[in-house]
Amino acid sequence: MRKIKLIIQYDGGGYSGWQVQENAVTIQGLLEDALFRITGERISVESAGRTDAGVHALGQVAALKTSSGLDAGIFKRAINAVLPPAVRVIEAQEVFKDFHPRYDALKKRYFYLIANHDVCSPFVVRYAWHVKRRLDTSAMSEAAGYLVGRHDFKSFCAAGSSVKTTVREVSLLKIEPTDGAEFLGMRLRGDFIRITVEADGFLRHMVRNIAGTLVDAGRGAVSPAIMPEILAKRDRGASGPTAPGCGLFLERVDY
Amino acid sequence: MRKIKLIIQYDGGGYSGWQVQENAVTIQGLLEDALFRITGERISVESAGRTDAGVHALGQVAALKTSSGLDAGIFKRAINAVLPPAVRVIEAQEVFKDFHPRYDALKKRYFYLIANHDVCSPFVVRYAWHVKRRLDTSAMSEAAGYLVGRHDFKSFCAAGSSVKTTVREVSLLKIEPTDGAEFLGMRLRGDFIRITVEADGFLRHMVRNIAGTLVDAGRGAVSPAIMPEILAKRDRGASGPTAPGCGLFLERVDY
Repeated sequence: MRKIKLIIQYDGGGYSGWQVQENAVTIQGLLEDALFRITGERISVESAGRTDAGVHALGQVAALKTSSGLDAGIFKRAINAVLPPAVRVIEAQEVFKDFHPRYDALKKRYFYLIANHDVCSPFVVRYAWHVKRRLDTSAMSEAAGYLVGRHDFKSFCAAGSSVKTTVREVSLLKIEPTDGAEFLGMRLRGDFIRITVEADGFLRHMVRNIAGTLVDAGRGAVSPAIMPEILAKRDRGASGPTAPGCGLFLERVDY
Repeated sequence: MRKIKLIIQYDGGGYSGWQVQENAVTIQGLLEDALFRITGERISVESAGRTDAGVHALGQVAALKTSSGLDAGIFKRAINAVLPPAVRVIEAQEVFKDFHPRYDALKKRYFYLIANHDVCSPFVVRYAWHVKRRLDTSAMSEAAGYLVGRHDFKSFCAAGSSVKTTVREVSLLKIEPTDGAEFLGMRLRGDFIRITVEADGFLRHMVRNIAGTLVDAGRGAVSPAIMPEILAKRDRGASGPTAPGCGLFLERVDY
């Protein structure tokens, strides 16, 4: 058996997230179907992160075991020939057999986009959370500051999730306001807020719950200084709403 | 009767172009249906350019006559509340009664995007023509140079189109190669070619036929020096293929 590592991009808009489900089209499902067509093998594909429905990826990492002798480059080409254009393998390489895209990840980076203006461009609405009310990005940055570091993020974890530990180390949580956005060579006007977050691992809905809570701080619904208390409560009910999946991108995974 | 000028953005991906058609969803149709719901009037909406199926607009200009007393800002808000998110009115203002978005336009600018690399990102495929074969952008620029100026563009006009004159003045035709593209704050790798074209008016399929012909020059299928001959033939059969609509954006209209 050989192991192939894939770097994958997808526009998650039309899909029910990463993980295989009955009666739903998922990224993992599309990949496994493509691999079956190519190799005849029923291959389970592991990923660095199980993105939710609607969430996008620029640099999702996946790995698969195969007994096929196909070269990694041929795998990439063959998978892309079968997948819909909304899902692309951008890199493929053979790796050591014990490589695991999630367990071996040192750091993952997500990116969350907020369109903070009145009329949301059709080119943005698929890729951002449209928040009309003007947000105070200083308050958001102040709130974000409390979340950087090694904390128990149970309050930001989807209820009912079962993990050994809810402690994670957030190495970066950056709020960047911009007064426009570049879209493939065109300038789209309007205020945008980009949230970049890097951690050694993420709990279920963690980035979306952080984004929702930071937006609560930005609209003055909660004080930034309440963040340590939210963390201390270890209760999902203490933090803000779950921001919509469409604004979220899995940007990269470091090993 | 009052006249309202609208600036409109749309992601043309899911639509059958600007112009109203039976049994097809068009931008004009969506706007006229929205106006009927808002005013009760059957209003015909004129535009600066009848974009084809799949073509996008950043700054389409439209105008409508109404006997409603609604303020232009209210119109904008009400239309956006009814339209799908893929079509947005970004500006609305009352103008002189004799304003016509097409006849009064001094200059229009289109933008055509080519993804010139092997694997096309899911974030680009909706908004570009994916050409895998490496194009010679110097040859494309050389070919483009012959098309700048006042010429009879009949060879670049869709067959069967009936217009008084096929002479147009192209004031700008620029080929810009880039080694990546900014997408809402993220950098997408790969070679891209942006074609920007400005003219006092455009014939049916003119930009797409120019783009197709320039790509023919870029892949060495025709010599750039043949452009004057193509123009002189005044025959659609003399120029290259019609580039797909998805790569084309109506960028702006000047009055």
